[in-house]
Amino acid sequence: MKKLRKKIYMTAGYNTTSLGTGRREFNPKKPRPGLEHYIKEAGKGVLDQIGGPEHVDEAVIGNFMAARFNKQANLPGFIPYIDEGLQWKPATSVEGACGSGGLALMNGIKTVLSETADVVLALGVEVQNTVKAIYGADILAGAGWYQRRKEGHAYFFPGQFSDRAGAYYEKYDYDRARKGMARWYANAIENARLDPTAQEFQNNVEDPYAQAYGMKPNGRSFVDHLTILDCSKVSDGASAIAICSEEGLEKIGVDKKDATEVVGWAQVIRNITNDPTNLTELETIKKAAHQALESAGVTVDQLGTLELHDCFSIAGILVIEALGLAKPGEGCDYVAAGKTGRKGELPTNTTGGLIGWGHPTGATGVHQAVTIWQQLTGKAGNAQIEIKADKPYGMTINMGGDDVTVIAIVFKRGE
Amino acid sequence: MKKLRKKIYMTAGYNTTSLGTGRREFNPKKPRPGLEHYIKEAGKGVLDQIGGPEHVDEAVIGNFMAARFNKQANLPGFIPYIDEGLQWKPATSVEGACGSGGLALMNGIKTVLSETADVVLALGVEVQNTVKAIYGADILAGAGWYQRRKEGHAYFFPGQFSDRAGAYYEKYDYDRARKGMARWYANAIENARLDPTAQEFQNNVEDPYAQAYGMKPNGRSFVDHLTILDCSKVSDGASAIAICSEEGLEKIGVDKKDATEVVGWAQVIRNITNDPTNLTELETIKKAAHQALESAGVTVDQLGTLELHDCFSIAGILVIEALGLAKPGEGCDYVAAGKTGRKGELPTNTTGGLIGWGHPTGATGVHQAVTIWQQLTGKAGNAQIEIKADKPYGMTINMGGDDVTVIAIVFKRGE
Repeated sequence: MKKLRKKIYMTAGYNTTSLGTGRREFNPKKPRPGLEHYIKEAGKGVLDQIGGPEHVDEAVIGNFMAARFNKQANLPGFIPYIDEGLQWKPATSVEGACGSGGLALMNGIKTVLSETADVVLALGVEVQNTVKAIYGADILAGAGWYQRRKEGHAYFFPGQFSDRAGAYYEKYDYDRARKGMARWYANAIENARLDPTAQEFQNNVEDPYAQAYGMKPNGRSFVDHLTILDCSKVSDGASAIAICSEEGLEKIGVDKKDATEVVGWAQVIRNITNDPTNLTELETIKKAAHQALESAGVTVDQLGTLELHDCFSIAGILVIEALGLAKPGEGCDYVAAGKTGRKGELPTNTTGGLIGWGHPTGATGVHQAVTIWQQLTGKAGNAQIEIKADKPYGMTINMGGDDVTVIAIVFKRGE
Repeated sequence: MKKLRKKIYMTAGYNTTSLGTGRREFNPKKPRPGLEHYIKEAGKGVLDQIGGPEHVDEAVIGNFMAARFNKQANLPGFIPYIDEGLQWKPATSVEGACGSGGLALMNGIKTVLSETADVVLALGVEVQNTVKAIYGADILAGAGWYQRRKEGHAYFFPGQFSDRAGAYYEKYDYDRARKGMARWYANAIENARLDPTAQEFQNNVEDPYAQAYGMKPNGRSFVDHLTILDCSKVSDGASAIAICSEEGLEKIGVDKKDATEVVGWAQVIRNITNDPTNLTELETIKKAAHQALESAGVTVDQLGTLELHDCFSIAGILVIEALGLAKPGEGCDYVAAGKTGRKGELPTNTTGGLIGWGHPTGATGVHQAVTIWQQLTGKAGNAQIEIKADKPYGMTINMGGDDVTVIAIVFKRGE
């Protein structure tokens, strides 16, 4: 057994717009593009960069809840809808809640390692604005153990992470935590404003930090310990990327320097029927991040950029601690000091992350890999950060449920 | 690119009971086991045969519609619920409607080929008796393109295959077709009576052939061209199997002769947004079956047993034709002549298939592989057929939607 019996690359990433509140073109009272549209747009976005469908050997779709948001399953059947040239080819759909996109990447990686494909089209998609947010919250509660759903908040997952935030405030310090969380939000908006596909691209609030710090959690109107600015929004969107062997890269005519190379990964699952043992720690993410770095032979200070799963600002801070970038209780200070900012020690979620770019749940893991590909290969446009020679690695951390299904991948630029 | 860069085996199969109408213990008015129960029972059934959870490197669950039948997603999180020894290991969930089980097998096969695992626990599960059948039919319609759902019958998939049956009657011969379909049903019941886990195990109708042949399709009470005996029932159940490399088999201490070896496969997808071009042909299945046989270097007359996807009796007959065992329009005669019977030319669905054993949708593809494993290794108990030396191969054909997501696998006994 080994993790990478041959070299694996990713290239030709594409993101649709993340559509939802915040985008001017979003109007909940008018018809909007459906699941099919997003799959086709993202899929074609990749095909256009790799010379067409004939170069795709296999495809995989990551999706969480089309079954309920769109009453649609059998998602492999939508791959040939992208382009008739994909008809009759193998395709799969994978699910692991908000980690579905990361599972699509892992499926593609393993498929290329298996040598049954040289080029896999990996796509993530979610279209959630088909129902009102409060009903959507009940649908999304299926990422937790639904048998316990009634014990939770009406807004189930905000409730779960509100409990984590409350425990963090109590164990450490409310004001320091809120300062870190406000900075988290401000960074997300600042980065999203640089990416035209981001849900918060058009956000023009003058001082997002002041806005977030000034807003106090209020259990009477929402959950006890988070404000709406601590939460990722409801999003429709898709992201896609090509996962290739060396032979695959040659076939599609893409130079290695225009691709990222996968240098390590981890896929770690926690029992969904158990509560987390410690509300102020993301235990599964901690294991996955360390396994991924170890398998890559990379230390955290060699990371030049990071895409992490900030479904909630508190999750962002807890991932920073899980990575060992700050001690328990000090992740908030690390963030407040600007170290995760785009010019900080470890530029994180450089196109806005889940809170700024958006969180079309099944797409998120793929979107993370697209952002890392853009940054490491110099294709991030206005959102481009500087990748320094001594910190050449990028990392994605994608989570499904409350620290249940975690996928972490370490990348470097191809060479 | 190649299909099998190393040898792949399957062993240690396990089926739960397929629960639903027909089983005496089934009472729709009383509480029944849930999704969790079936996952745990089937998973433990495999672990008990392979020396425990420490031998499992990775797991995959095939499931179609837990999101709607059980409001549950994030299914990878239930793998550690089988046994805490599986906690922190990689797991994935795959979906392709009623082909989800086959996709779980393909995921496991590719994972072992990738060398990231030597032993994959592959499991399929569905618990559908949570809603009344007419609402369940609407949920299952998500295996087709839901945008067109309203054009279909209330019982959507029976309606789709009723259209196929109607076209078959018109193009060929109603009475010959109905005789083949009645024989299909009678074979299913005869075989199911030999397997204690089958949904029709306790069926004691004296003459199932006469019962099926005597029942006429009636569009006023059901669909136009099928009776309820032409349809698989609503089922709850799970099946699981271990997918191993040679090293994996050694690790779990299973002799090759107690395993099947995968000698060929195909995974073929048709555009779900298109109607079938020919109602009397299963085009995707035809391609998949021929690709699978070709990749194995095996001809159809070398098959000693076959598990095919008879969600409806007409589908069974059309698969026989797709395989080239009979000419178009003569599959009904092939079946009527007893050639798919347990002592016939090609014993098919020897534990009852979807109509006799049951059709817990996400489990079916895995159940097929378990049956082939049982038959080829002499573990089928009362349902055991004779495997002749000149026909040593077994084959599974699993379908999601109306000929959309197809997985075909060719097996022989390990040696």
